[in-house]
This record gives sequence, structure tokens and C-alpha cells, in this order.
Amino acid sequence: MVKRNKNIAKLPAGYLFPVIAKKRREFQEKNPTAKIISLGIGDTPGPLPKNITAALVKAAEGMGTSEGYSGYPDLGLLKLRELINLRFYNNQLDPDEILISDGAKCDVGRLQMLFGADVKIAVQDPVYPAYVDSSVAMGQTGEFNPETKQFGGITYLPCNPANNFFPDLTPAKNSDLIFICSPNNPTGACANRQQLTELVAFAKANKAIIMYDAAYSVFIQDPELPKSIFEIPGAKEVAIEMHSFSKSASFTGVRLGWTVVPKELKFEDGSSVLNDWVRLTNTIYNGTSHITQLGGIGVLEDAGWAEVQEMTSEFLENARLIKEALVKKDVEVYAGENAPYLWAKIPGRTSWETFDYLLEQAQIVCTPGSGFGIAGEGFVRFSAFGKRADILEAITRLEKFL
Amino acid sequence: MVKRNKNIAKLPAGYLFPVIAKKRREFQEKNPTAKIISLGIGDTPGPLPKNITAALVKAAEGMGTSEGYSGYPDLGLLKLRELINLRFYNNQLDPDEILISDGAKCDVGRLQMLFGADVKIAVQDPVYPAYVDSSVAMGQTGEFNPETKQFGGITYLPCNPANNFFPDLTPAKNSDLIFICSPNNPTGACANRQQLTELVAFAKANKAIIMYDAAYSVFIQDPELPKSIFEIPGAKEVAIEMHSFSKSASFTGVRLGWTVVPKELKFEDGSSVLNDWVRLTNTIYNGTSHITQLGGIGVLEDAGWAEVQEMTSEFLENARLIKEALVKKDVEVYAGENAPYLWAKIPGRTSWETFDYLLEQAQIVCTPGSGFGIAGEGFVRFSAFGKRADILEAITRLEKFL
Repeated sequence: MVKRNKNIAKLPAGYLFPVIAKKRREFQEKNPTAKIISLGIGDTPGPLPKNITAALVKAAEGMGTSEGYSGYPDLGLLKLRELINLRFYNNQLDPDEILISDGAKCDVGRLQMLFGADVKIAVQDPVYPAYVDSSVAMGQTGEFNPETKQFGGITYLPCNPANNFFPDLTPAKNSDLIFICSPNNPTGACANRQQLTELVAFAKANKAIIMYDAAYSVFIQDPELPKSIFEIPGAKEVAIEMHSFSKSASFTGVRLGWTVVPKELKFEDGSSVLNDWVRLTNTIYNGTSHITQLGGIGVLEDAGWAEVQEMTSEFLENARLIKEALVKKDVEVYAGENAPYLWAKIPGRTSWETFDYLLEQAQIVCTPGSGFGIAGEGFVRFSAFGKRADILEAITRLEKFL
Repeated sequence: MVKRNKNIAKLPAGYLFPVIAKKRREFQEKNPTAKIISLGIGDTPGPLPKNITAALVKAAEGMGTSEGYSGYPDLGLLKLRELINLRFYNNQLDPDEILISDGAKCDVGRLQMLFGADVKIAVQDPVYPAYVDSSVAMGQTGEFNPETKQFGGITYLPCNPANNFFPDLTPAKNSDLIFICSPNNPTGACANRQQLTELVAFAKANKAIIMYDAAYSVFIQDPELPKSIFEIPGAKEVAIEMHSFSKSASFTGVRLGWTVVPKELKFEDGSSVLNDWVRLTNTIYNGTSHITQLGGIGVLEDAGWAEVQEMTSEFLENARLIKEALVKKDVEVYAGENAPYLWAKIPGRTSWETFDYLLEQAQIVCTPGSGFGIAGEGFVRFSAFGKRADILEAITRLEKFL
């Protein structure tokens, strides 16, 4: 038969989050009465607020009318792209630079295909595993080294308390794509203006493209912190930004995101990256559900946008409460003020040992930090995406078992 | 800056359908009063029927409630996969073999990434351009040869009146993936049981995987014609089937499809293709909108399924009417009985000349056959996806100008 793709074969057997879901399921089967609380995957608890729901309902109803029906959705409704431009970029972009998608992770996969197998990437360590895994799948890397637990051909940029979770970029000087996630998943760290200014300068000097994942930017409360890489002068020549409605609007199940590819961004031969991106998107994607897009417009109009602020505040208050409990137990814990994640070091245990301990003792699911990269070893991530009652119950258990 | 991906650079500047849309737009701008009728892209005119719409509305409303809300959609609702199994596969599959997606074209892109750059594909000529274009983008091919208008490294299997639009497979004996679309887009031809039995035997003998695109199978009326490759004994060891709600349920704007990867399908090393498919899907996809999936369940339950049959009949009646008009004008025309497409040869003109002629004279958009491959030269495709009034008006014009 056909040969197995040697690049897919390099991937460890399971993507992180399904592995965690499986462990949780197995524990639940063995302990059917256990009431597990998830502070694990960054999944939103819902339900959607009133005005955002109303926009989705209206869109669905519209599909049953001649006026409201839509066939192929193309690359995104202009009104949606204009509202994104307004809410996230202070109208500094051209809507043509904003392509609507079904989520940042899906766009990461397509972006890897855009750049092809011959580029080399650099990633923060620890970081959201989709960048590395999609890079491996696309054939940009060497083999997985079971000793180092890293892939050959990928430049890992350690982020830890010593560097305030923003990496020394020097090792990335031969990288083509530098993935930066801010607010960071999993550490919750936010890059400041000076760090991003240095990043843009570094990318220019080293002919690299910054792949900036801003999926959590609505959680940034500190007015001094940039919410987009495009707030940095010159970034349009060296950066792509991926974004998502998943965490801001609790749209994990609705599927909506976007990617900004500025017109100023060029390949070495002077050709437009955006042109190739549009061509590839037309080839392997068919647009985002019309209902979802109209829901997205509902999110960004005034009434929906106010609901986004409320949800964001609610999750940040969850983060504050969890952090308070961890601090009370003398746990070394980071972030949570401008991000929905807490990054905690439990002494004397590996990440997976803490995961198992909390699942078995406290029936709490967290995410093992080592699943995000070796620099995450010893840490776990607590997600603040939960209902308040569950968070309070989780805090009681954490205080008991930590 | 970063080097341009040499594979994307191989693609001609425009994917076929956006090129057509641009020509149409330019004509409309120059002739603002012209009432253009599209028999071009296979886009559905809508609106959605009552019961299907109701399922979408209920799903959208549900997202505003604790009980109805869903976060990350995973690989597909079990109920949806069970209903697909019932309606399309007579319950002969395991629901775990059916992964839900946002459409067949998107799955084609991901499937190319599953198999990687080292496989060689064979395609029918003419055929839906996404297979070739995604293969090129993935790096499976050589350069585009402007003289032959074909890509190096792809095996093209001509389909024409002489072979009843089902190809001689012999040239594909060294291909890894053989893309077969039936009912075919664009020719409307349906492979019969004997042809598909030979195809399965050929794939087995030559260690190839059949990539079977059945997106138009609901249009098959002849009970003798197979609606799925899996009706052929042994196909589960050598075939993948892509499918879609776009044309059956007018879901082009809702985005829902699925791919079947049977458990029996193995790579050369004996490993499971399905396992790698699940791993890749978890890595570069995040599931299909929960609202869309519940809409899909509505499509497949009795009331929605009856509406699908009504829509299908309506489109097939459109096809019959267009065909009748073309036959009256002595145009050589094929298909339309078991497919929503008519494949017509207009003597003395190239495909693009006919396209331009019909746009300028009759304000009718068709699709140039040569856009689907060189064996399509001289043909145009007429799509039956239109409102009846538009179809009747188009027929009047066709009778006048052909």
C-alpha cells in the first residue's frame, strides 16, 4: 500500500488535549460518582450571552429566507472585517488584509502549508502545541528526540521566571518563522511594548516573519500592554497575526477566527505573501459559516461587545480567585491578571505527577506544563474558563489537597 | 525576507471560481443594468427549507442556554455520524470511521497534508480543480507546463464521450492516490458498478488509495448506480470517501461535510491511516460548528431528509429543462439525469470563448470546461443550481443566442 507520511509518523501518538480528555474519561469510568472539575483545556463554559445568541438565531432564521440566505461564504463578510478592524486595530488595517476563518488553530495549519516544508520555525517553550505539531506534520522538522523531548530543526526559546517568560531571541537568528503567543498560552505572560519592539527589529534584521498569536488579547487589562503586534511601528513588514473569537466570545463551539496578512509583507523575491495566502485559502478552504460570521458581527457590535467585556471580567475574576488560593498555599504562581491562565509550579512533582495527583485526590483536571514543552516541566496550567460555582468548589479542593 | 514556497508559486495565479467571479463582476460594472444569470459555479440559490432551518435556529438558541451550549466540537457529534451512517452507508460503517468537517474541499486540503509531499496523484481530466491545486500546493508535483497546460508528476486520466467519461486507469499504475469524483464535477457522469469494481481491483493490484468524492451522490436517481465506493466489496481496504452537505442540503454557506477513512485501510508499514488522520485532524482542525452539526442532524432526520429529496428533484428538473433547450438547439450535451451538471460542447469555440460569448450576448455565466483540465476544452458546464424563474429565463436566452 501507500507509504506512511514520514512527517506525520514523527508526531508523538497523541495531541496533548485529547490525551488529557482520555485520562479524564478513564478516571470518570473508574470513579463514576466523582464530580470532576476541569481547570484543564481552555474551553469556555457558556452559555452565550443574550445579544450574541440573538445574532446567531437571527442569522439561522435568515438562512430560511431569500434575503438572508447565503451560499459560499467567500473570504469573509466585509462588515465583519470592518468591525474587526475597528475593535482590534483602531482602523489601521485594510479590511482586505483580514481573512475570516474557522479559528486560529485551523489557520496555523494552513499557514504552515503556505510557507511549505523548507522553512524553519522558532517557538516559545512552553507554548500551545499546535505550532510545533503542525510544523512537524508539514515536514519542516527533523525527528523527535526522545532524550531531549524536542524535534530536530525547531528552535525552542525557553520562557521561564528568570526571563519573565519572554525569550532571548538570539537562538532564532536563522529561523524563518518566529511564533510568539501573547498573552501566552500556557504561561499567561504578556509581551510588553519594549519586548515587541525588539522582536520586530530582530525579525527585520534576521529576515524572519513573526507569527503572532493574539487569541487572548481581550484579556489584556493593563493599558500599557500592546494588544496587537501591529501596534509596533514597522510590524506590517514582518508580521502575521492570528486571532480568534473562541475565548473572547466563548465561540469555541461556533468556530470563528481571522488572520491578518499585511500587504507590506513580502517574500524574498518581492512577491506578496497576502496574494499567496488568498490563493491557498481559495484552494483548500471554502469560507466560514455565514451564520457564524453574522454571529461574529453580533459580537463586535456595541451590545455584544459589552457582553464580551462582562465575560472577560468574569473569567479574570475566576483567575484572581484561583491565584489567591494558590498564593495562600504558598504555591509559586504567575500571570492571571491579563490572561485567563495561571502558571503554577508545584514543588517536588513533575507536571504529569501533579496532573495525576490533582485528578485522583481533588478530582481537578489541570494541564501538565511539560505538555507545552520541556521548559514547562514542573509547572501546571490552571484555566480560568469555568463557571463561578465550579471555580469556588475547585478552590476549596485545591486548598485541601495542595 | 523568507523564501516564497516554490510549490505555491507553481499554481496559476487564480483558482478557477474566483477568476470567473471576477470576470462576472467586471462585466456587471461595465453593464450595470444587465441581469446576469449564473449557471456557473455550483452554488445553491436557497433559501433553506423549513425543517432544516428550524434545526439551525434551535441549535443557535441552544447556545444561549446551559443545556444547549457546546464548547470545542471535537471530531463530530455521534448522533450526526450515526445518521450519516444510516442515510449514506446503510449502517455498514463504524461511526468512528466518519469524521465531521467543514466541507469536502477543506478535507481534501487536509488529506493532502496527511499523505505528504512524497505521493503521486492521478486525477480524472476534466475534474474539480481542488485536487490538482491542493496537490501542487502540498509539493507533490512538478512545474506547470504552459504548453501542455498540465503539471509534471500528476497523472491525468482523460474522460470524454469516447470512454463515457470514465477513464482508462492504466496510466495510474504508479500513482499513490487516485481521485475519482462521481457523480462527476464537471461532466455529471456517474461511475457504474462494473467501473467501480474494476477501480477497486485496480487500486488493490497497484497499491493505490482511491480518493472518492461523492459530494453529489444524492442526485443519483438510477437505482443501479452505486452512491458510495463502499458499496463495492473490498473498497474499505483501498478507499477514502469525501462527502458534503453543500449540494444535498444547500449548505454551501453553512459548511458541513465528512470524510470516511475505513479502519481496514493501512499504510505500507501496516499502520492505520485512520489513526494518522485523527492525529492530523486534532492538530490542524478544531471541529465543525456545533450549530452546523445540529443543523446537519436536522437535515438527516425524516422531515429534513424529505426536504432534501424535494430540493434534489427541483434541481434535477432544472437540469432536465436546460438539457431539453440545448438538445433543441442541437448542442452536444451530456448528463443531467443523475447529477446537477450538464456538460455541453459548443462547436467552433474554445471553452473560454463560449464563456465570453454567453456572458456578453446572453448575460449567462457558465463554467469553461478547460478550467477543469485540458480534456474539458471545447466544453462548458451548466449548473442546475438556480431558482426556477432564473432557469426559465436562462433557457429563453440560450435558445436565442446558441
